[in-house]
Amino acid sequence: MDSNQISELVVDIAQRARAASLQLASLPTASKDQFLNTLATKLLEQRAEILSANEIDLAAARSHGLTGPMLERLSLTSQRIAAMAEGVRQVAQLPDPVGAQIEQLNPPRGFDLRKIRVPMGVIGIIYESRPNVTIDCAILCLKSGNASILRGGKEAFHSNMQLAKIIREALSESGISPDAVQLIPTTERQALNVLLKQDQYVHCIIPRGGEQLIRFTVENSRIPVIKHYTGVCSIYVDVDADPEKAEAILINSKCQRPSVCNAAENLIIHQAAAIQLPRLAKALHENGVELRVDHAAKALLIASGLPLVDATDSDLATEYNDLIIAITVVPDTAAAIQCININGSGHSDAIITEDAATASQFLVGVDASTVYHNASTRFTDGFEFGLGAEIGISTDRLHARGPMGLNELCTYKYVVHGKGEIR
Amino acid sequence: MDSNQISELVVDIAQRARAASLQLASLPTASKDQFLNTLATKLLEQRAEILSANEIDLAAARSHGLTGPMLERLSLTSQRIAAMAEGVRQVAQLPDPVGAQIEQLNPPRGFDLRKIRVPMGVIGIIYESRPNVTIDCAILCLKSGNASILRGGKEAFHSNMQLAKIIREALSESGISPDAVQLIPTTERQALNVLLKQDQYVHCIIPRGGEQLIRFTVENSRIPVIKHYTGVCSIYVDVDADPEKAEAILINSKCQRPSVCNAAENLIIHQAAAIQLPRLAKALHENGVELRVDHAAKALLIASGLPLVDATDSDLATEYNDLIIAITVVPDTAAAIQCININGSGHSDAIITEDAATASQFLVGVDASTVYHNASTRFTDGFEFGLGAEIGISTDRLHARGPMGLNELCTYKYVVHGKGEIR
Repeated sequence: MDSNQISELVVDIAQRARAASLQLASLPTASKDQFLNTLATKLLEQRAEILSANEIDLAAARSHGLTGPMLERLSLTSQRIAAMAEGVRQVAQLPDPVGAQIEQLNPPRGFDLRKIRVPMGVIGIIYESRPNVTIDCAILCLKSGNASILRGGKEAFHSNMQLAKIIREALSESGISPDAVQLIPTTERQALNVLLKQDQYVHCIIPRGGEQLIRFTVENSRIPVIKHYTGVCSIYVDVDADPEKAEAILINSKCQRPSVCNAAENLIIHQAAAIQLPRLAKALHENGVELRVDHAAKALLIASGLPLVDATDSDLATEYNDLIIAITVVPDTAAAIQCININGSGHSDAIITEDAATASQFLVGVDASTVYHNASTRFTDGFEFGLGAEIGISTDRLHARGPMGLNELCTYKYVVHGKGEIR
Repeated sequence: MDSNQISELVVDIAQRARAASLQLASLPTASKDQFLNTLATKLLEQRAEILSANEIDLAAARSHGLTGPMLERLSLTSQRIAAMAEGVRQVAQLPDPVGAQIEQLNPPRGFDLRKIRVPMGVIGIIYESRPNVTIDCAILCLKSGNASILRGGKEAFHSNMQLAKIIREALSESGISPDAVQLIPTTERQALNVLLKQDQYVHCIIPRGGEQLIRFTVENSRIPVIKHYTGVCSIYVDVDADPEKAEAILINSKCQRPSVCNAAENLIIHQAAAIQLPRLAKALHENGVELRVDHAAKALLIASGLPLVDATDSDLATEYNDLIIAITVVPDTAAAIQCININGSGHSDAIITEDAATASQFLVGVDASTVYHNASTRFTDGFEFGLGAEIGISTDRLHARGPMGLNELCTYKYVVHGKGEIR
């Protein structure tokens, strides 16, 4: 395809998605759920076709030298397809967010004014080479009444095309326009550039993937973007911390699943709680965590004999996604808050203290999507929050912050039921 | 100033605003209200200084040939300053949005999880040459706990600098960082370009002004923009419309204040309601409205002897802001909905009908910030909605839609009050 053809293709997809979104906005819940259940069945029935398509992608990836987690994420198995189908059935069980009354207002002239949840319209999802994201995003957008345009990573192209074909079949069989979920059928970079300019038809872009992909999206999009850059989460151990809670929460936040965005990367400790540091550091070390310490922390830990690494200036702002922690000592809670607001990524931060006033100071002062008093940062998650499903975690401030479920894929409209009122 | 100096200046302003925003986030309501009341007093006390500065702007504007509404908007009078001060006192009376609990969630593991309203952080306001917008935006941002960066039109530069000086004095006297409200002290275009790239420090941009200014902002901003392009609002008269309501609402929506965004621009009429058209057209004509008619409407009106103008393809998508209306005849409600979704701007649209099912079809099907059943589109307004104040009306879908008050200038954070919970 030449440049003009790619442009025409993407604009056509965007226009079709917009038209489909107007149908979706008033689609009954039963039709959406019928689609989801049909899709789940088809995924299981067409397991062999999905695996063959995935094998083409895997062979190409291996021949390009792809290994480790990248190859692992690209790879589908019969079991993974079954898990996908199960996920689709679970979304069918969730309540339909569309049409719910968010608020009844009290306008001064007394007319009947309500704020009603409605779909956004068309959502563009840009993601890397994880075929399961194709299904995840398609079903969450559809259940929330949105049309979606999917742009997956090139390594997963054949897998995604196969999944998109199955989605299209399930849509048609459920009486929904197949334009409600469209995969961009080319891996050309230019298609992405054109998509990001379709603000006339596309209402929101959600990039899912590495920081580079997200920055590219933000810099090139004319469409609003909801994103999650990084998760640099901190645990602050206050002078009034309960030592057992401090250790349990620190180890859980850091070690239970270090590769994820809500894992802790920093331990900030009040100088008057210094007596607790050797025990906390020992517990971290015993869990395999490398300790990157500032001068004050080093002085407090040198006698412990634990292996220490000198922290650099950037350590407190780094998302390790690994068994590494940065440790710093602060004079008071205000300094801890400042340290987090400067170095953190606005994702999730916790204070461990038994003092309610100090906790309140921290919870108000820390500027993050989720702030914890005496609990693990690992809870920042759509399922743990009771949202039922999650399309991602936003570190933005506009529209949605923190875990995003079906409600967060919606906007609202004001509805006035009048009796002939004029101004 | 050379290009580097402008860059440094704007980055410095953005950094200071971010630092101030962290103070503002936990500022007590009393401090914010003290600032507002101090500002109101100072505006009255320094009336003469404001009028002198405004006179410099007016003289320059006149010498550049500015006339009519542009000059009128730029112009301050003693009375207008008094109205400004009164507006500031009214915002002081409004409830503080910050810290309110939006929702208590029910996470499956039962920990205490709440969604709390918090300021966005730093808001950039870009506007044209209306000095009153300087005060309006500064006070709404401050009351909602946000730092603001103001970039006004060059014609109002001296007026704005004088107002910004008074705001700074009032901030200092109320113990608030003067960096909480900053006006960009240069009219260079490059300052705007630099501001729009400060996504590290600035969290939201709100452009207020003409479509060209808004499009420039959207195309050049790396920061999320909340905007309002145009108001192309329609009145749909259904076959089951009550004739008196239809006429009253149509005339009110079109004629009560034709220059504003929630005024109606289109009359869409069901073909089976054609009998009503001559009377409605006559009422419009008697109110001085020019009638731009499609073929079907012309055929129905030709016998009336009313002056008619043939509509062109673009009329139904045009915001006249004037005593002009486009009239089209549709075969049914579905066609009316489609006509609005294609030509409208997603602002405000009304159906006039006595049939509840038809009304419901319209209210669900029309994709606009506000949809009306048997009421005038002129009610789409922060004050009329009971929001108390308004920073603008969003035709976007993300974050805020329709009239935006103090709540809409806020985001939220999730707050967990734990007892040592780990995952």
